[in-house]
Amino acid sequence: MFVRNQWYVASWDHEIDRTPLARTICGEPVMLYRKFDRTVVALQDACPHRLLPLSMGIKEGDNVRCRYHGLLIDSEGRAIEMPVRSERPHKSICAKAYPIVERHRFVWIWIGDASLADPDRVPDFWPCSHPGWTFDGDYFHLHCDYRLVIDNLMDLSHETYTHQGSIGQREILESPIETRAENDSVTVSRWMAGVDAPPFWRNALGQEGDVDRWQICHFLPPSSVLIDVGVAPVAAGATLEKHDQGVRGFVIDAMTPENDTSTHYFWGMARNFDVLDVGFTARFKAQQASVFREDVAVLEAQQRSIARNPNLKLKAFGIDSGGVRARHVIERMIRAQQPSAANEAPDPH
Amino acid sequence: MFVRNQWYVASWDHEIDRTPLARTICGEPVMLYRKFDRTVVALQDACPHRLLPLSMGIKEGDNVRCRYHGLLIDSEGRAIEMPVRSERPHKSICAKAYPIVERHRFVWIWIGDASLADPDRVPDFWPCSHPGWTFDGDYFHLHCDYRLVIDNLMDLSHETYTHQGSIGQREILESPIETRAENDSVTVSRWMAGVDAPPFWRNALGQEGDVDRWQICHFLPPSSVLIDVGVAPVAAGATLEKHDQGVRGFVIDAMTPENDTSTHYFWGMARNFDVLDVGFTARFKAQQASVFREDVAVLEAQQRSIARNPNLKLKAFGIDSGGVRARHVIERMIRAQQPSAANEAPDPH
Amino acid sequence: MFVRNQWYVASWDHEIDRTPLARTICGEPVMLYRKFDRTVVALQDACPHRLLPLSMGIKEGDNVRCRYHGLLIDSEGRAIEMPVRSERPHKSICAKAYPIVERHRFVWIWIGDASLADPDRVPDFWPCSHPGWTFDGDYFHLHCDYRLVIDNLMDLSHETYTHQGSIGQREILESPIETRAENDSVTVSRWMAGVDAPPFWRNALGQEGDVDRWQICHFLPPSSVLIDVGVAPVAAGATLEKHDQGVRGFVIDAMTPENDTSTHYFWGMARNFDVLDVGFTARFKAQQASVFREDVAVLEAQQRSIARNPNLKLKAFGIDSGGVRARHVIERMIRAQQPSAANEAPDPH
Repeated sequence: MFVRNQWYVASWDHEIDRTPLARTICGEPVMLYRKFDRTVVALQDACPHRLLPLSMGIKEGDNVRCRYHGLLIDSEGRAIEMPVRSERPHKSICAKAYPIVERHRFVWIWIGDASLADPDRVPDFWPCSHPGWTFDGDYFHLHCDYRLVIDNLMDLSHETYTHQGSIGQREILESPIETRAENDSVTVSRWMAGVDAPPFWRNALGQEGDVDRWQICHFLPPSSVLIDVGVAPVAAGATLEKHDQGVRGFVIDAMTPENDTSTHYFWGMARNFDVLDVGFTARFKAQQASVFREDVAVLEAQQRSIARNPNLKLKAFGIDSGGVRARHVIERMIRAQQPSAANEAPDPH
Repeated sequence: MFVRNQWYVASWDHEIDRTPLARTICGEPVMLYRKFDRTVVALQDACPHRLLPLSMGIKEGDNVRCRYHGLLIDSEGRAIEMPVRSERPHKSICAKAYPIVERHRFVWIWIGDASLADPDRVPDFWPCSHPGWTFDGDYFHLHCDYRLVIDNLMDLSHETYTHQGSIGQREILESPIETRAENDSVTVSRWMAGVDAPPFWRNALGQEGDVDRWQICHFLPPSSVLIDVGVAPVAAGATLEKHDQGVRGFVIDAMTPENDTSTHYFWGMARNFDVLDVGFTARFKAQQASVFREDVAVLEAQQRSIARNPNLKLKAFGIDSGGVRARHVIERMIRAQQPSAANEAPDPH
Repeated sequence: MFVRNQWYVASWDHEIDRTPLARTICGEPVMLYRKFDRTVVALQDACPHRLLPLSMGIKEGDNVRCRYHGLLIDSEGRAIEMPVRSERPHKSICAKAYPIVERHRFVWIWIGDASLADPDRVPDFWPCSHPGWTFDGDYFHLHCDYRLVIDNLMDLSHETYTHQGSIGQREILESPIETRAENDSVTVSRWMAGVDAPPFWRNALGQEGDVDRWQICHFLPPSSVLIDVGVAPVAAGATLEKHDQGVRGFVIDAMTPENDTSTHYFWGMARNFDVLDVGFTARFKAQQASVFREDVAVLEAQQRSIARNPNLKLKAFGIDSGGVRARHVIERMIRAQQPSAANEAPDPH
């Protein structure tokens, strides 16, 4: 069971064009395409007549005609022409249309009751579209529960071993973390005051001297993690609350459930330095992909191991507090959306 | 659940020779082979001893010896020699034998109670074996419910879109159809009186002038569709009941369930013109295969979509009336074969 | 359900070295490796923290560090270092350790309650390690229930047909067998007194004259079969009880369940003649592999056929008495390990 009445990332903005893209979101098969006005349409990927995927259909302007019997569906999902053209389509013949918002380089889809869709509730991925910032990334398809990815990202201590040989370093494990849960967001902060900057950040900052360094993981429900990373000169007086005095980036991670044990993983890096250096952007994306592939190997092996060991339970240590609290938020939201009647049949998910 | 006590096409006549062919029919693994007298034998494809497929066995004359321990089974399924030859086989040691009739170029198998098998109940595929007619075709294995194929064939309007670029044409959608259900057969007729013959039929007819043209889809239970197509000169006075005055063909379609979502599809074309032109026969078969492959793509995608969208239901429009009624016949037959006790456990199919 | 509180072959001795080997035994994912002192360690193949397979971990001396968060597990399964090193691991954080005995060229693992593991209960594979004997063999992974392999080996009459063209011969079927079940072992004996030795055994024996020849299949619970084969000169007075006067070999077969329908098959040949002839050993192993591959084809086809024919039951003839009794032993052992309460839910296996 997934959290409903939420915006999920359906795709990168550049993945959608006039040809329909088929993608299953939270177990619902959807197809997406752009209209001539470039807005994105999302419809159930099944013709309301005989369920042939509409993504196999024939585009006619902004409409799509089913490849089987030619039912013509407009961009709001309404049947506007029957196979026999002289017949009038009944308004009950329609493909479910999903609310869509395009924002922060992503196409967001509303899973749940369309009448409740509120664009103001799109998670705030501001670094992806903020003036003075640049952002790029990529997409992985993962064979694991999206919550395993959240666990992974809310605890960077795994870098030491999973990314041994790439970005791992012992020091990260030795800095204390602080975990806070407020309303529906969870934050895990690691503030390293007055330290020597590692080479990457030293280069980015472009000046000598001790720095304050931070790694702040934000879980944004239902399934995103934004990690605020960077350094600022000690003299600048950066704080946990305000730390835009130096160089700063955000690791962007949106994990959209495909099904119970598969996930659409949209990831990237936003930064406020060297923003015009497209070579840096490309190199950084390649390096990030390489590191994330190490995570994929671990996450998919973990998923298989969970399936093979039904009698073993995940244990939580102190380092897992961020993931644990994020899961509590998810569980609370799922409980809240369930009918209150105690004798209700359990949801099959 | 499938309709039982019925003849199903098990294979083309030319598919069966002395080497056993393994094929699952209505969920039952069967092996078929020809005896020296050329009659066809069908036995359960599992040795009554330890269930090794008999189709892996060693043929000895008209008998088959199991490859595991050498139990010898005769062509009526009886064990006639035990692994230890001095032992006498008990008559309870036997492989189920299926009644077989070879007719109309097909090998028909009786699924159900063998004592009820009546060769007179083989569906009447007369054009496949009628003097003055010729018939050829081929076999496809489909990953879909056989009823989706019946739906497809009982409504030719899908040609316009599924076969766009090959045989599709808008006109078919614009001629009215008439659907009749009588007893257990269903007929969808499209009669085009006094029209210009399309080039294919003009060539076949070999004369000028307006024609009467017809497309008459016959559903024959449990799972065949024969489509009577052709043209006759207007002056010949053809009618829906009698229209053999011109050139005529039958699209032959036998859909034998393998399992719930897979089907043996035997198809071809019978015709009463140019019957000695084997080049025409071969070219027509190749063209028909090409068109039917377009159907396969649609049918298998439809099956997957049905599985992915458990909350969506197939809708029926006017064009679907033939398929809807054919399904009613199938459902009525299945209900009739179920035990009457109201508290019977539901069949898992 | 498998017989528990038993030693099973986990691997050949040469399969295990310092790098962990992952293998599922009786449904339990295990990893095995050797310590510096060459003893073998077997631990659950899932980190007690987040279940990542420990076999993906990083070896540190005789310990293994999880590749995810770096929990350090010692060779007894205890966590000895937390991801954050300043934390003290609680003793409840541990990977299940399996008792191991290395004997007769195999690594044996105890499946069940570790406190009951008694090395004296390792099945007696004495020919594999007896002075004056030599032993070699190999490993196959089979897609079938291990009990089908026991059936196969307790009845050599299948050689006639399954191994037609290789070792099969009609004579084996014609010699009477005797089946004895004592306590938990089952023996099927075929004693051929005063016969001409076949070429293989004539060469091995190296002398003329009639011989006594034997094939004695021993089922050793939970899942092994040792087949005592050989010949002795008639004058030597060999008996069923004592027959080491001539040349003798043992076909060694250990079938360890992986899951319900997959098996680790460890097989080989021990012999007391030409023991230093490594060329003979290698040629014999290649020939045995070739014969056993014929069994694999049959066994896996049988397993598939059982799954496809849920309404058909395995039948037992006289030749199957050894396998039938071995299955009785297995069933009795499984019943004995079940809770006595009569209203217990049936085990799903």
